[in-house]
Amino acid sequence: MALFDLPLDQLRTYRSAAKEPVDFDAFWSATLDEARALAAPAAVTEVRTGLRTLHVSDVSFSGYGGQPVKAWLIRPRGVDGPLPVMVEFIGYGGGRGFVNDWLLWSAAGYAHLVMDTRGQGGGWRAGDTPDPEGSGPQSPGFLTRGVLDPHTYYYRRVITDAVRAVETARALPFAERVLVSGISQGGGLALAAAGLSGDAVAGVIASVPFLCDIRRAVTITNNDPYAEFARFCRLNPARAAQALSTVDYVDGVHFAPRITAPALVSAALMDLTCPPSTVFAAYNAIPGTKELELYEWDGHDGGRGHFAARAVDFANALLA
Amino acid sequence: MALFDLPLDQLRTYRSAAKEPVDFDAFWSATLDEARALAAPAAVTEVRTGLRTLHVSDVSFSGYGGQPVKAWLIRPRGVDGPLPVMVEFIGYGGGRGFVNDWLLWSAAGYAHLVMDTRGQGGGWRAGDTPDPEGSGPQSPGFLTRGVLDPHTYYYRRVITDAVRAVETARALPFAERVLVSGISQGGGLALAAAGLSGDAVAGVIASVPFLCDIRRAVTITNNDPYAEFARFCRLNPARAAQALSTVDYVDGVHFAPRITAPALVSAALMDLTCPPSTVFAAYNAIPGTKELELYEWDGHDGGRGHFAARAVDFANALLA
Amino acid sequence: MALFDLPLDQLRTYRSAAKEPVDFDAFWSATLDEARALAAPAAVTEVRTGLRTLHVSDVSFSGYGGQPVKAWLIRPRGVDGPLPVMVEFIGYGGGRGFVNDWLLWSAAGYAHLVMDTRGQGGGWRAGDTPDPEGSGPQSPGFLTRGVLDPHTYYYRRVITDAVRAVETARALPFAERVLVSGISQGGGLALAAAGLSGDAVAGVIASVPFLCDIRRAVTITNNDPYAEFARFCRLNPARAAQALSTVDYVDGVHFAPRITAPALVSAALMDLTCPPSTVFAAYNAIPGTKELELYEWDGHDGGRGHFAARAVDFANALLA
Amino acid sequence: MALFDLPLDQLRTYRSAAKEPVDFDAFWSATLDEARALAAPAAVTEVRTGLRTLHVSDVSFSGYGGQPVKAWLIRPRGVDGPLPVMVEFIGYGGGRGFVNDWLLWSAAGYAHLVMDTRGQGGGWRAGDTPDPEGSGPQSPGFLTRGVLDPHTYYYRRVITDAVRAVETARALPFAERVLVSGISQGGGLALAAAGLSGDAVAGVIASVPFLCDIRRAVTITNNDPYAEFARFCRLNPARAAQALSTVDYVDGVHFAPRITAPALVSAALMDLTCPPSTVFAAYNAIPGTKELELYEWDGHDGGRGHFAARAVDFANALLA
Amino acid sequence: MALFDLPLDQLRTYRSAAKEPVDFDAFWSATLDEARALAAPAAVTEVRTGLRTLHVSDVSFSGYGGQPVKAWLIRPRGVDGPLPVMVEFIGYGGGRGFVNDWLLWSAAGYAHLVMDTRGQGGGWRAGDTPDPEGSGPQSPGFLTRGVLDPHTYYYRRVITDAVRAVETARALPFAERVLVSGISQGGGLALAAAGLSGDAVAGVIASVPFLCDIRRAVTITNNDPYAEFARFCRLNPARAAQALSTVDYVDGVHFAPRITAPALVSAALMDLTCPPSTVFAAYNAIPGTKELELYEWDGHDGGRGHFAARAVDFANALLA
Amino acid sequence: MALFDLPLDQLRTYRSAAKEPVDFDAFWSATLDEARALAAPAAVTEVRTGLRTLHVSDVSFSGYGGQPVKAWLIRPRGVDGPLPVMVEFIGYGGGRGFVNDWLLWSAAGYAHLVMDTRGQGGGWRAGDTPDPEGSGPQSPGFLTRGVLDPHTYYYRRVITDAVRAVETARALPFAERVLVSGISQGGGLALAAAGLSGDAVAGVIASVPFLCDIRRAVTITNNDPYAEFARFCRLNPARAAQALSTVDYVDGVHFAPRITAPALVSAALMDLTCPPSTVFAAYNAIPGTKELELYEWDGHDGGRGHFAARAVDFANALLA
Repeated sequence: MALFDLPLDQLRTYRSAAKEPVDFDAFWSATLDEARALAAPAAVTEVRTGLRTLHVSDVSFSGYGGQPVKAWLIRPRGVDGPLPVMVEFIGYGGGRGFVNDWLLWSAAGYAHLVMDTRGQGGGWRAGDTPDPEGSGPQSPGFLTRGVLDPHTYYYRRVITDAVRAVETARALPFAERVLVSGISQGGGLALAAAGLSGDAVAGVIASVPFLCDIRRAVTITNNDPYAEFARFCRLNPARAAQALSTVDYVDGVHFAPRITAPALVSAALMDLTCPPSTVFAAYNAIPGTKELELYEWDGHDGGRGHFAARAVDFANALLA
Repeated sequence: MALFDLPLDQLRTYRSAAKEPVDFDAFWSATLDEARALAAPAAVTEVRTGLRTLHVSDVSFSGYGGQPVKAWLIRPRGVDGPLPVMVEFIGYGGGRGFVNDWLLWSAAGYAHLVMDTRGQGGGWRAGDTPDPEGSGPQSPGFLTRGVLDPHTYYYRRVITDAVRAVETARALPFAERVLVSGISQGGGLALAAAGLSGDAVAGVIASVPFLCDIRRAVTITNNDPYAEFARFCRLNPARAAQALSTVDYVDGVHFAPRITAPALVSAALMDLTCPPSTVFAAYNAIPGTKELELYEWDGHDGGRGHFAARAVDFANALLA
Repeated sequence: MALFDLPLDQLRTYRSAAKEPVDFDAFWSATLDEARALAAPAAVTEVRTGLRTLHVSDVSFSGYGGQPVKAWLIRPRGVDGPLPVMVEFIGYGGGRGFVNDWLLWSAAGYAHLVMDTRGQGGGWRAGDTPDPEGSGPQSPGFLTRGVLDPHTYYYRRVITDAVRAVETARALPFAERVLVSGISQGGGLALAAAGLSGDAVAGVIASVPFLCDIRRAVTITNNDPYAEFARFCRLNPARAAQALSTVDYVDGVHFAPRITAPALVSAALMDLTCPPSTVFAAYNAIPGTKELELYEWDGHDGGRGHFAARAVDFANALLA
Repeated sequence: MALFDLPLDQLRTYRSAAKEPVDFDAFWSATLDEARALAAPAAVTEVRTGLRTLHVSDVSFSGYGGQPVKAWLIRPRGVDGPLPVMVEFIGYGGGRGFVNDWLLWSAAGYAHLVMDTRGQGGGWRAGDTPDPEGSGPQSPGFLTRGVLDPHTYYYRRVITDAVRAVETARALPFAERVLVSGISQGGGLALAAAGLSGDAVAGVIASVPFLCDIRRAVTITNNDPYAEFARFCRLNPARAAQALSTVDYVDGVHFAPRITAPALVSAALMDLTCPPSTVFAAYNAIPGTKELELYEWDGHDGGRGHFAARAVDFANALLA
Repeated sequence: MALFDLPLDQLRTYRSAAKEPVDFDAFWSATLDEARALAAPAAVTEVRTGLRTLHVSDVSFSGYGGQPVKAWLIRPRGVDGPLPVMVEFIGYGGGRGFVNDWLLWSAAGYAHLVMDTRGQGGGWRAGDTPDPEGSGPQSPGFLTRGVLDPHTYYYRRVITDAVRAVETARALPFAERVLVSGISQGGGLALAAAGLSGDAVAGVIASVPFLCDIRRAVTITNNDPYAEFARFCRLNPARAAQALSTVDYVDGVHFAPRITAPALVSAALMDLTCPPSTVFAAYNAIPGTKELELYEWDGHDGGRGHFAARAVDFANALLA
Repeated sequence: MALFDLPLDQLRTYRSAAKEPVDFDAFWSATLDEARALAAPAAVTEVRTGLRTLHVSDVSFSGYGGQPVKAWLIRPRGVDGPLPVMVEFIGYGGGRGFVNDWLLWSAAGYAHLVMDTRGQGGGWRAGDTPDPEGSGPQSPGFLTRGVLDPHTYYYRRVITDAVRAVETARALPFAERVLVSGISQGGGLALAAAGLSGDAVAGVIASVPFLCDIRRAVTITNNDPYAEFARFCRLNPARAAQALSTVDYVDGVHFAPRITAPALVSAALMDLTCPPSTVFAAYNAIPGTKELELYEWDGHDGGRGHFAARAVDFANALLA
């Protein structure tokens, strides 16, 4: 694979040119307040599986606008005391699927809350959470769903779900500290949830995060999902400026400065899906304690098992 | 292009094995009655364009559940007397786009009502009609949106829109007879609208229609949109039987026997998107006057200008 | 789609490095004089179609070397007075096809002369005009047909046809002013015809024009048709310099300075077929009144309906 | 995805036409006896990971010809009594990778021995076991490595490793009953190991197994790895008959009749990598207790999480 | 590669359903007589190359309509006596290229006359022979050039060139017996030249010949060049019947019964370019001495070096 | 094809940044000394072929570690005196194939020794030489076989074979001067063999050589074989530095300064397999007499017949 983005030494100091919307904080405060006002307590129902060392629950919590969002809650069976909780967000297009897809963090001794992504789950791993909001014409996929207004934008809803997932985790009776993590879209959501949750999050792990430096991303790669944005603008050139204004509200480069928890971020130099400069743009904007895991030879599947091991070590060290 | 479906002599007599749901008529009566009960009169607003020989209006009519659906109404400028109205439905993924995309039928001396397809218009030609209904996880696209219940199924809404478009056309002050037409998805909708509109439709033109003999179609081609169905079932095997039951409610082979107007249908022997056997399945089920335009060397774009000319001649002859 | 060519601010001022052949004017004068000397009056035969609002004729006029070239002539039926005539040239590989493919300009109230492209029409839309000149070995396609000498070069013949089409339009009994237009190859021919027709052309519309800044184009894209040139040179490296000299005679950057009519040009920043720098090279060389329509998110199909509407408005305004 | 293999009703009774080599049992007895004669006791070394609920060991055992083969041994930490052991074989091209890739069976309460595949691990998941045997020219991949003689054939070595892995599992101090499982190549190895291990194996789980009905497989699909075989024969047509004779020694249809343990097999009707008829050929040849998990809408990744859940239930029930 | 055509046992007896045109012999007699009447003696000019063991000449002989056709004539330097002459025709799209491309037959001790294919040589190996005949719109390539009339059809000209090449070879002062050979298009031309040359040809070698059983070929493969025919018919459906009538005049299945020389033919069972049934159709129609070389695992490049060795042995044995 | 590498004027002076290992000479001396110590005299056995003007022998000589390596020896039959010998190395993935694949140099009056490449010959042209060394997991192909140590690296063995082939050629009873040549991998081996053979080689011909400036090559192209290296590092990031150290031992930029014979090198500006900068890196490092053949419009198959003719002329001139 050929290198295609900025050289590594430039990546180390690259900063996004994207401007934060002036009402960024107000927008999110209002959104989250509304969701909290409409929230009901989470429903947590034990599920019988053949995985006999694990205690598994099907969770339904109140997300954006009080709408129900599904999750799996998985933890080691037979543990009495408090547990750290890892809240995980999922990559683009996939749903929560099967419990057997999510065995890492319980194996590491954590409670693990895997949030379903509303409307997703039709692409590769099945999902169980509808997105009850309809939409106008959009490029197929999710990146431009409702993009003509920040209030109707799909990711406003999903990020709200993510913050609510953190709050749900914190309310679990056995919950000790709460961390967030995810790969790709999941990584973008982890950055957003961390940025919006303040001290409620004790650590954030974002692998090759999506939704960072979006204005740049949509002009330097042909790969989906970023290419969905260009396709939308192609059909709707007069609406491109508005669409760009909307995505500023969900850009990781604006959540990053608000993150207070220690962060682990990975980037891959040959990643055409989430180009490394867009990841560095977010990473470089995190003000506090942070670590970068760099994959020099990888594309978007950068690191896989390497990163899983690194993530577990990072979390264990944080909690030690 | 290689031939891949049944030999032509077998196509001539092929009949679908799909069974009509026992409540097929009841399902559609109830759906349409509800839509009509919620309908408001269409809003018809003149639009200024540079196309100086045409009178163009932006139409908004009440579709499924009374929800607003957009259309273009295009007719020769300066014609006083009554006009036949061609109602046209659009191919998969495209919206109504620009008036300059729709110049055939006004050139032929018809009023032309081009119905936007709700939620579509993000793939190639822009659209203006939202689908306000959200949905659970589905295969990307529209074929499996809400497919787990005939009542929530996306095409229940679109077909209702189509019938309502016919009713809207009939209510136009200058309307003479009303015909329906379309290519691919548009052809499938034309068959459905004709089957559900009885004598309100004076002719039906369906080029390489989609949504016919769906149970067979989804197992004999890898091409989208039919392949969306297989992808959904792959993620949701336990729900495949239900999904198959749902699509029976929108299958052209069940609308065909209800068509009373003369019909022109085209099929292309090398069409991997709407395989010829599935088109013949619908054509062979039309009981009345009908003509088949067969393209022996074509794929799904079968006929194009040839078919447009043939369609104009067919309509002109009907109305002569 | 990723941006790949020069940044927009550099495009704004980019000038081609191609040098005009010293005998450029002499070459074209001689070529056109010879064609005119061999020309017979155009044969214009009415064609019956189902498009009842239109008057349609099949035209055969004398092109390069007096050879017959086909065209459609389409105009609103029942108009008595003089009409502006839009002469349109066709994109690469397509022929004049069906009348129903060409409904824009008559709908806008123009007479519309659609010139068939000699020898083309085997790729996507059928044609009716042979190219009676044989050729030596060439890269498949038209870009290198006869390219070893400007006198035998295919585009010498086609551009001559285009100038003769303008002259044919001007000779129509009802002709008012004459404009030229086209997309891609058609846009390149429009620039050439305008540059060679002086004041005989009242306006020129070129969408994503082909045949501009060819020496650069053939080294910055892998897309056909420009890639045909590289393929030819690969097989014939010793003849590459001659081939490059030949294409200088048909390069839009040399026709542009000779254009006196107002011009509308479109470019698309993600256009890998006619890269934006090559289009800007021609646009920037037009000395007079001109407008640029820029598609920031589009590839070679840049603009479509948007551009059609813009083109009609541009022409209407010119003639107002 | 289109169906492409035999119809389902024919698959239910399909039997391979492949003939068992007359010295099949002798060949394998001699091979295994030699391996056992050269075997040293397995080296089992604890590995520290962040997965705090698991006890993980790096295992090195004696495989074919006494050569060292790597494995992971993973089991729930803090369990005292005897444990069932699931021996797992890996899909084509991948190595044992990271411990965090293999969390299913320990979560289900089993000890889990994951055998590295010699020489593999360069395609997608890294491996740690060399194949110290060189080879003559072969089609890239493993299917034709040493294929000109059953004694030098690559899969003779790997299957021997697999049988030795079962024997290694049985010798673990805490081992209760031993089962074998795998997906694709892993499924083929599970069938082989079960067929060669007699009562030493208490259950066999083979998902979309490779290496079954090979003579048919190599003529009905263009997908790798089976297509490697055709490529080899293309270069070496005079050696095709010998190569076909060799693969008979490793064909699952010959191991199947020797399987005495209960078996769970999956097949996917749209699987172009391990076509369903080849899987049914093996399944139908298993004489004893068996279950088929059929995926009607899936390709080679058939079932994934569905099958993992089914496999755990199958194994739990066997051991109940 | 998957098998896709008729099973081998059916291939062994397969006969084409194509009917010979009633005026087939008259058509070719008239064509050849005309060419001979216009022929001038071949110009044979020695060419200096670094290949010091060879005597090389550039040949220009009179082909169809007396038009000049280029060839290489290559023979061992320093041989005094008479030599057998192998006339070779070239595969689709390539020209005669470099002398160093054609070293087989001189190495075997033959004089070797390599005929350039008119108009070809732009695809992969350069050519030097123009096709001075222009053409109407056609599918890109050569298969449909002039296909609307057998008299204007491109292959009428090329086959005439091929027969004239044989006659040119026979007139060489050192010529002993003359054989013909070729691969793919070259094989089709070899069959045609042999069928039209009677006893003037002492042997014919046709590897995976093109232009056989064309009516069937164009419906069973998507591969070029046969797919060019379907593309043409797609644009010109009303002319498909005429085009099919034309190709009957150049079909190898009609030349085959006229071949009197011993023949060697190869077929490849996985050949999607010249499907095996079409090759068998010609082979099975050869009445006399013949040998089939079958490649069971090959596509269109079937056999390569294997076939070259076999061809040399076949020719040597014929001449022994 | 688009240009993608450095501009030509920068290529003219480009120098690789790769550092020569400090023990480079020692490494190769030891390796070659060991091979020579284990060498037996070459076995040269005449082979009967139908190529009656040639004398052909099957050669087996001692290569790396004394292991047998196959070659063809082809020379004009009936030549008594001494002959220059061209030693040729083969492109990636192919074996020595058939004698009829190698007719250039004997036609030019040379003895021609074509060295089989150990282990290769499974990709396109069959081979006959095994690589008896096994290996650990590697990226499929040869570039990373044994790459974790220069001593186990595959190309250590192949380059040793190449030097031994030169020594074998020199020991032939009729040998006059010895030259080396090859295309792609063969070109890389020619540079290596020349650099390690000192005055034993009288000329070196390397067309688009592989294995040059490898550290750069593996980051600027996605094409195999260089992409194999990135794939390996992706799976084994912790071993990337070691792998890079290993390839330094076989890099053409380090052999180039040791070449004393006149050299002919070709490069192609659109070559994505062996990018031009990597070829210039080696060419620019050759200290002595050298010629560059530049293909401005070619990819990796750059030049073909052109280069063959040029190579023969170059060699003839050297020996004149």
